[in-house]
Amino acid sequence: MTFKASILTLYPEMFPGPLGHSLSGRALENGLWQLEARQIRDVATDKHRSVDDTPSGGGAGMVLRADILAKAIDSAAPADDPRPRILMSPRGRPLTQQRAHELAEGPGAIIVCGRFEGVDQRVIDARDLEEISIGDYILSGGEIGAITMLDAVVRLIPGVMGNMESAATESFETGLLEHPQYTRPADFEGHRIPEVLTSGNHKKIAEWQHEQAKDLTRERRPDLWQRYISTDSDD
Amino acid sequence: MTFKASILTLYPEMFPGPLGHSLSGRALENGLWQLEARQIRDVATDKHRSVDDTPSGGGAGMVLRADILAKAIDSAAPADDPRPRILMSPRGRPLTQQRAHELAEGPGAIIVCGRFEGVDQRVIDARDLEEISIGDYILSGGEIGAITMLDAVVRLIPGVMGNMESAATESFETGLLEHPQYTRPADFEGHRIPEVLTSGNHKKIAEWQHEQAKDLTRERRPDLWQRYISTDSDD
Repeated sequence: MTFKASILTLYPEMFPGPLGHSLSGRALENGLWQLEARQIRDVATDKHRSVDDTPSGGGAGMVLRADILAKAIDSAAPADDPRPRILMSPRGRPLTQQRAHELAEGPGAIIVCGRFEGVDQRVIDARDLEEISIGDYILSGGEIGAITMLDAVVRLIPGVMGNMESAATESFETGLLEHPQYTRPADFEGHRIPEVLTSGNHKKIAEWQHEQAKDLTRERRPDLWQRYISTDSDD
Repeated sequence: MTFKASILTLYPEMFPGPLGHSLSGRALENGLWQLEARQIRDVATDKHRSVDDTPSGGGAGMVLRADILAKAIDSAAPADDPRPRILMSPRGRPLTQQRAHELAEGPGAIIVCGRFEGVDQRVIDARDLEEISIGDYILSGGEIGAITMLDAVVRLIPGVMGNMESAATESFETGLLEHPQYTRPADFEGHRIPEVLTSGNHKKIAEWQHEQAKDLTRERRPDLWQRYISTDSDD
């Protein structure tokens, strides 16, 4: 079973976009995952192919219609399609590395990209859409959110990354932000690589890196730090 | 002064990508902002045009070299360039709607897209790079992070959005997630639009929407809710 993403969007031309390059692009070419972008407008039946209407109760902007979106979802995925149905939305639960892992282990995803003021709540309920947010800021639509989520997920699909060790020590996999990195040249504008890193003492190096990761997390992300110290009692 | 984004990347072909469509694409065509993507490799001088090296102290992956990146940054922006220098990085401070507003009001940004295991810490320090993260998950590189951040920023540049009212009532602008939306048809698979929204009583509608927004935020985002109730004492 290959991971398959079906995108429902008003801008199918945005895909694969950046996902067609680099790691995810090579994986796409090699058949390690599949991507289809479907134009929501294709299921609209009136002569203007309209997909949205004004919000009930007044207000600015336009709302994606429940009937149109339901039809688009149903045409992309029959009721027994095992893939999760996701709506990219700033109202959603924040995407986590944990959720990216779960999605990467599954059959794929149906991903609805919202636009305008939002999506009629009744289709979110009736089609059991899982609302996911990629962060606490507003984008022009769900497309870039979908691209971001897929990039996070695709690199975790088995066979996509060459070096699995590289994934395991990264930020969020350990609960800490990653320690600072250094490489040659030894001298950069008079700044040298910290001595411990060139000592050859692997135990000391690991300890130093762990301390640096803790300091950075404590300073920059008190929220992650609180979670870390409440689960790792030995620190 | 027009907002100008200069991207430093190993994948300039990823740009403008999705930013070339829809709202940000039209704004780009209309000259409301400018975008250039520069190949970091162009400043490398050895015959392999190498930009990275193995991490000091050992470990998997490769690290972007401080000397190469400094040269790329300096060639994109002289020392007196007023634009903030940003490094997209999972170790960064989370992007917020507030920071997107600040960036949209400024002259633009130099945006460095990390790859591999990371970037030599000495260039982050020496060039005073502001590390920004778009969320607590790992991407294959900084490019998609840069695209996401720019989409959030560009729509806030004056003249880009048609309807400024639409921006002000969105999630994160009020401190609450947005209330549910509904539109025609009145009946969707037997589910009707909530009666209050068709009552014509604007005060009642506003109250209902505010209650819905509070309920949703309390349930889904206890972190935002805590912040909201600590600043809005009348709720």
